[in-house]
Parts: sequence; structure tokens; C-alpha cells
Amino acid sequence: MTVTIPTRSQRPAADRILSRCREIAACTEVPGQITRTFLSPAMRRVHTLLRDWMDAAGMTVRIDAAGNLRGVLPGPTPQAPRLIIGSHLDTIPNAGPYDGALGVVLGLAVAEELRGQNLPFSIEVIGFSAEEGVRFSKPFLGSLALIGELDAETLALPDRNGVTVAEAIRIFGLNLAELPNAELATGSFAYLEVHIEQGPVLESESLPLGIVEAIAGQTRTAFIFEGQANHAGATPMHLRHDALSAAAEWIAEVEAYAASREGLLATVDTIEAHPGATNIIPARVTATLDLRHANDDTRATAINNLTTTAKLSAAKRGVKLTTQTQLDQPAVPMDRHLTRLLESAATTAKAPHKKMTSGAGHDAMIVARRLPAAMLFLRSPEGISHHPNERVHPPDIEAALTTTLEFLKLLSNDEAIPKPTA
Amino acid sequence: MTVTIPTRSQRPAADRILSRCREIAACTEVPGQITRTFLSPAMRRVHTLLRDWMDAAGMTVRIDAAGNLRGVLPGPTPQAPRLIIGSHLDTIPNAGPYDGALGVVLGLAVAEELRGQNLPFSIEVIGFSAEEGVRFSKPFLGSLALIGELDAETLALPDRNGVTVAEAIRIFGLNLAELPNAELATGSFAYLEVHIEQGPVLESESLPLGIVEAIAGQTRTAFIFEGQANHAGATPMHLRHDALSAAAEWIAEVEAYAASREGLLATVDTIEAHPGATNIIPARVTATLDLRHANDDTRATAINNLTTTAKLSAAKRGVKLTTQTQLDQPAVPMDRHLTRLLESAATTAKAPHKKMTSGAGHDAMIVARRLPAAMLFLRSPEGISHHPNERVHPPDIEAALTTTLEFLKLLSNDEAIPKPTA
Repeated sequence: MTVTIPTRSQRPAADRILSRCREIAACTEVPGQITRTFLSPAMRRVHTLLRDWMDAAGMTVRIDAAGNLRGVLPGPTPQAPRLIIGSHLDTIPNAGPYDGALGVVLGLAVAEELRGQNLPFSIEVIGFSAEEGVRFSKPFLGSLALIGELDAETLALPDRNGVTVAEAIRIFGLNLAELPNAELATGSFAYLEVHIEQGPVLESESLPLGIVEAIAGQTRTAFIFEGQANHAGATPMHLRHDALSAAAEWIAEVEAYAASREGLLATVDTIEAHPGATNIIPARVTATLDLRHANDDTRATAINNLTTTAKLSAAKRGVKLTTQTQLDQPAVPMDRHLTRLLESAATTAKAPHKKMTSGAGHDAMIVARRLPAAMLFLRSPEGISHHPNERVHPPDIEAALTTTLEFLKLLSNDEAIPKPTA
Repeated sequence: MTVTIPTRSQRPAADRILSRCREIAACTEVPGQITRTFLSPAMRRVHTLLRDWMDAAGMTVRIDAAGNLRGVLPGPTPQAPRLIIGSHLDTIPNAGPYDGALGVVLGLAVAEELRGQNLPFSIEVIGFSAEEGVRFSKPFLGSLALIGELDAETLALPDRNGVTVAEAIRIFGLNLAELPNAELATGSFAYLEVHIEQGPVLESESLPLGIVEAIAGQTRTAFIFEGQANHAGATPMHLRHDALSAAAEWIAEVEAYAASREGLLATVDTIEAHPGATNIIPARVTATLDLRHANDDTRATAINNLTTTAKLSAAKRGVKLTTQTQLDQPAVPMDRHLTRLLESAATTAKAPHKKMTSGAGHDAMIVARRLPAAMLFLRSPEGISHHPNERVHPPDIEAALTTTLEFLKLLSNDEAIPKPTA
């Protein structure tokens, strides 16, 4: 089966994607900011916008029991294989307009472009209800429901007003009993997520697009240095047990270690020194290390080496070190075959691109537990995201849209894709 | 004129000094702690204790308008020269029993031992009302009054209940109009302060006593590193502007710099990283450097060099550095002649000792503006002070008392001391 990629300029489609992102951004809980959390009234207004656009595109729209908005462009038969294109509709507090929303709106644009092209599969565009997870301090609620892993423990989590996830679902007018219907439809065969990079890599190399090979694994470990609180004016340097000096030497070493290892990201993002008072040598310092890499072995070696480094820095000063692992999350590789198709598509679309690792988590990480998944990144000007100044270049949207259309063309002719039954 | 130093063991006097410190420690604003601030009811109880002991020792006692307790053991004539022995009676919150009080009680013991010895000078023992300065967040109120520098601005400072220094004086029943009478009496010729070291130097060298040559000068400077808050998972190491890494490298260098310079103390005692949030590279770090040395030139060189070090560490990472000097207090040398006499006295007393710098400030620093001043330190077991576990060895008190008595003997025969007129 042959899919015809529209040959006219994608400029009007790109402009529409931008203006739709702005319309969605106007749906906010906090006037003057973009703030939209799980099943808030602002989220209902976004649903209304998307439902109208999807209806007009010939899609069948519903909100599932986890609050995900789902629009289906039908395939040749009701049992046709199904491609999922998704991203999230919630935001952090005071967010930018493109993180999440862009991927959903671009998915809709793809459906609009390909309507009537007799694709061999249906396209389901999903706007996930909660990826940032601000309201319940837990991310990925929407995609977890999609793979049937939104469990009772999560449903019982309270927001800061004591309303649980389950209650929020009921209050929004949804029926928790229908949660099983939120799961992936039979025949779903692949997942694509288009997302802004949220980092400076593509911009620093003047590339509009990135093909994600893996979502990095992540370790978060608290390093606690315990020394002794002596008088800063009465304790000679050689008689000190300065917890901050021990932590500081280690932090500088963390940076140097990561800088010399390809693809390793190491960040000490929080530090607290106690007592933190005038005249007193710090007795206890807690610093949290965030470590990410696409390869879990590299990450494991790094955390071991950096723990040893911390112990040495502490021991030199008669300071005690303890660590507390807060998170140890394996890397999630994207599907190799889909990733190769996406690369070919970008090349056909004449969109300069590179393969890269996503340091941040995305719904693709969750969906990849059930479906072959791929991710396409768009350059983030100045690397700015999670900030009102977050932007995206219109030509990059054109490149992403053309690449995605080419990707669907390749998929349509791909031997590895299940054929429509019936 | 010859002064006879009591030849019997000083043990009973040392025991009495310890038990008196404990009685004073029981006068507290906070049951279960030792907390005693400027002109509190607890301070009035201390005055009562000391007045009784001083009366019994044949001393004339008064409370001056700044709340200092002052007991005079008369000299041969009313116009006789006057030696001042003093320390402070206020404490920090949850203090130990010896910081300050020991010096006052030891001064009293000296007067008791030398009563009737026909010294060529009078001895005035002063218990200063506020050296720690907790109540009004300003130290040295008592000694400032002694040198006539308790100014209107200080008198107008409010405590946390809005009561000013001036009002506190009136509420305690004192008369601010008599403040000029708090100044040093005509004929005052020298000041001696006996104090616990509050650090680990003497203990680390197994010495009971220290002869203070100077009170260190001090610089307090805030170093503000301003980088950029990027995503910890999406920003490669070489594209970061990590304010915490810049600060950390510098903090480690501060320690190394001070460790290699005789007598220099350098402490980063507070650090704050913003935003200090999960996932975000620290954008701004404020760290405060406390720098002390007996030589002001050494300290000036150190602050210049360490500022350059900080600038380099910042510049390497595209981070901006600014500094704010919060304090720049010159060193205060003790009087050379008195210090030599104190050394001779310690040698005669067979008390092992060393000359040293006081890193902490003391009333002697203030009084030195008007009078030749000397300070004698007692070893602090484990270097502990400003803590309920603060201790002092009884034999060290014996050594300090004998040394002080020998010092007064030397003073009595000293050519440099003014002769009693009349």
C-alpha cells in the first residue's frame, strides 16, 4: 500500500500547530502562568479544544478513565493494527507552552494530513493526563493506565488537599470501573512520541531534530558527610573535621569524573550544611547526586567510583560518610527497528538530525514496557524548558512533521508491521 | 613593695572557683539549659551571688549603668593605680558553665588570695553584662560602656520583643544618666582577662595554658556564584554553568590555602544553592567565607587570593562571581609588656604554656582600645565550648590562678606600672 506524503510546504500545518499550542497554553489554573495539572478545570478546557479539532479531522474521541484524551483515525478495518502517537497535556507550575502539548498537537496534524490516505493501520493520538505528575507528586499516571499499571496504591495517593487520584477521577465525572478500557487496544503495534528536547544539545550542534536511542537510566543518591561543629575562629585547620570541605572536594570531583566520560551526566542539585551558622565549622552536609547514562553498567560503575571518591574525601578529614539511594531506575532503550525507520524518515525529509540519549523521562519510557517505542526530539532554543520562555522554531516543527509523515510512510510499507486482519 | 604569693596548694581555691561557676550556671532563663542574656532576671541572681562573695572578700561592689558588676579591692590610697580583671557574665543560648564566668570568678579568687597583701594598686573585678550579645544581636555592650563607646545607636537597638537596650537598662532598675560613671576609673593602668580557649589547640599540645598575643582580625565575605538553572538530565557537562561545582572547587581550595599558611583560619560556614531542586542544575550559590589571622596583611593577601581563586573557578564554567564584604575587623594585639610578664608568671608557676592567637573575639579586644591588655587561656577539653559539655580541668584552674597571682606579683614590682600618688 502506498501512502502519499503531501508535497506542498508544511508551513501552514506548522503554523497551525504553533497556534494550537498557544490556545492550549491559555487553559491554565493560574492566570498569567501556564499551569495545568491532572484533571483540573483547565484540563477539561483542553479536552474541549482537542475534541473539537479531532472531531473535525474525522477522528473518534473519548476521555478514558485515567483522564487521557484519545482520538482515533480509523484504519481500513475495525481490527486494523494501531499506531499510537502520544505525549502529555499536563504541565509543571509556570511551564512553557510546548512541553508535552506539542507532541499531541503534532500527532493530530499527522492524522489531519493523512486522512483519506488509506493507511494500513489506525492512528490513535493520545494526550496523557499526567506525565509531570505535579498534583500527586507522581509522574506518568496517564501512560501507566495505558499499560494497565495504574495500581491501587497510586489511586490512593492524595493531593495537597487530601483528594486522592481515585476521587479526582470521580469528581471529574469519569468512572474508575472503566479503567481496564484505558488499556492499549488489541492490535496496537508501535508508539511514537514527538517532544521538545528540553536541553541544549541540538541547538549547540545546529540540528533541528534528535532521534532518541534510549532514555537514560537514573540514580539519585543522598551523600551525608558527618564531621564536627567546632568554632571557626578557634580550631586550627589541621584539627578540623569540616563536613563542607569534604563535600566540596567531592562535588568538584563528581563534575570532573562526568566530564571525562562520554554521555554521563552527574549533577549535585541540592546541598544543605548544618548548622550553617556564623562562626561554626559545618558539622553535617547532605548533598544529592543525580547520575544518568544510557548504559546501566556505566552508571553502576560511576556510582561506585563516586561513592569511593566521597569516602576518601571524607576520611581525609575524619568525616564520616553515609549514602542513601533514593532512586535507581534502569535505562529504557527505544525500539531499534523503529529508531532506524525514524532516522531514514528524517534523512528523506532532509532534516539534519543526530541520535541521542534523553536524560529526562517521558511517557515513551512507560509505554516501551508494552510496545516498541520511538521518540523524536525537536531542538529547544537556548535549551530552555520548564520555563515560560520555552520556545520552538517553526521550521523545526515543519521538519518534525515531515519526518513523522515519512516515518508513517515507511511504517505503511514495513514488513515487520502486522498486516490488518479481516 | 613585696607581694607574698600564697605557698599552700591552690587546690581549695580551684575547687571553690569550679563550684562557684556551677552556682552561676544555675542562674538561667531556660530550665535545663544555661542561657543568660543582658539584664535578664537570671543575671540579677548572678549579681546577688557575686555581690555576696565580693562583700565577704572585702570588696566594694556596684552595678554600673550598663549592667556590669564591678567589685573593687581597695589599694593603698583612693587614688592608687587600678588593675582591671574582667570577663563576661552573659552566655549564648544553651551554653557551657565556664565561658566568661570562669574569668570573673577567678578574678574574685585572686582578690581573695591577695587581700591584705598591701598591693600598690587596687584590683577591680568586672563581670561584663553582654559579650556574647545574644539579646540585641550585638556583642560587647558591657566593655563598650567601660571605654565610653556605648553609643546612642546601640542604646536604641531593640530585642525581639521590641525592648531597646536603653529600656532594658531602665526596666532592670538602672539609671542611664549614670552611664559616664561606667567608664574606666582614673588610674586604671592594665586589663587582664582569663578565659577558656574554646578551641582544641592547647589540648592537642597537652598544655594547660595559653598566652594570647593577639586577637585575630576577621573578614566575613559572601561569595555569590551565578550560573544557569538547566535540566540536570538534558544538559551535557560541557554546556553547563553549574554554580555549585564552581563554589565547590573554590571551597576545597580555600581549605588547602589556609592549611598551608601558618595561623590562617579559613572557614566556609554557610552555603545555599538555588533552586536546590531535584533535576535542576544549581543556578546560584551563596557561600560565606570567614577568614582570621593575627596579621592584617596576611589576612588582606588571603582574601585577595581567595577572591581570585573564586573568580577563576567561576569563569571556567561561565559562572559570574560577586562578593559582599560583611565584616573587616583588624587584629587586636595584646600589650607586649604585659604579655611578657604573663609568660614569666606562667614559667614561675611551672605551668606549661604557649603563645597563641585568639581566633574568637573577647572583651579584651574592646578594652585594649584604652588600656594595655593581656589574656590568659585555659585548655578546653576536647575543644568543646558554646555547648553544655564544655569543661575545664581543675589542675588547669590551679595553674591559671597561680600564674595570675605571679603576674600580679610581677606587676607590683614592675617599673612600668604607675606608682600610687598621694
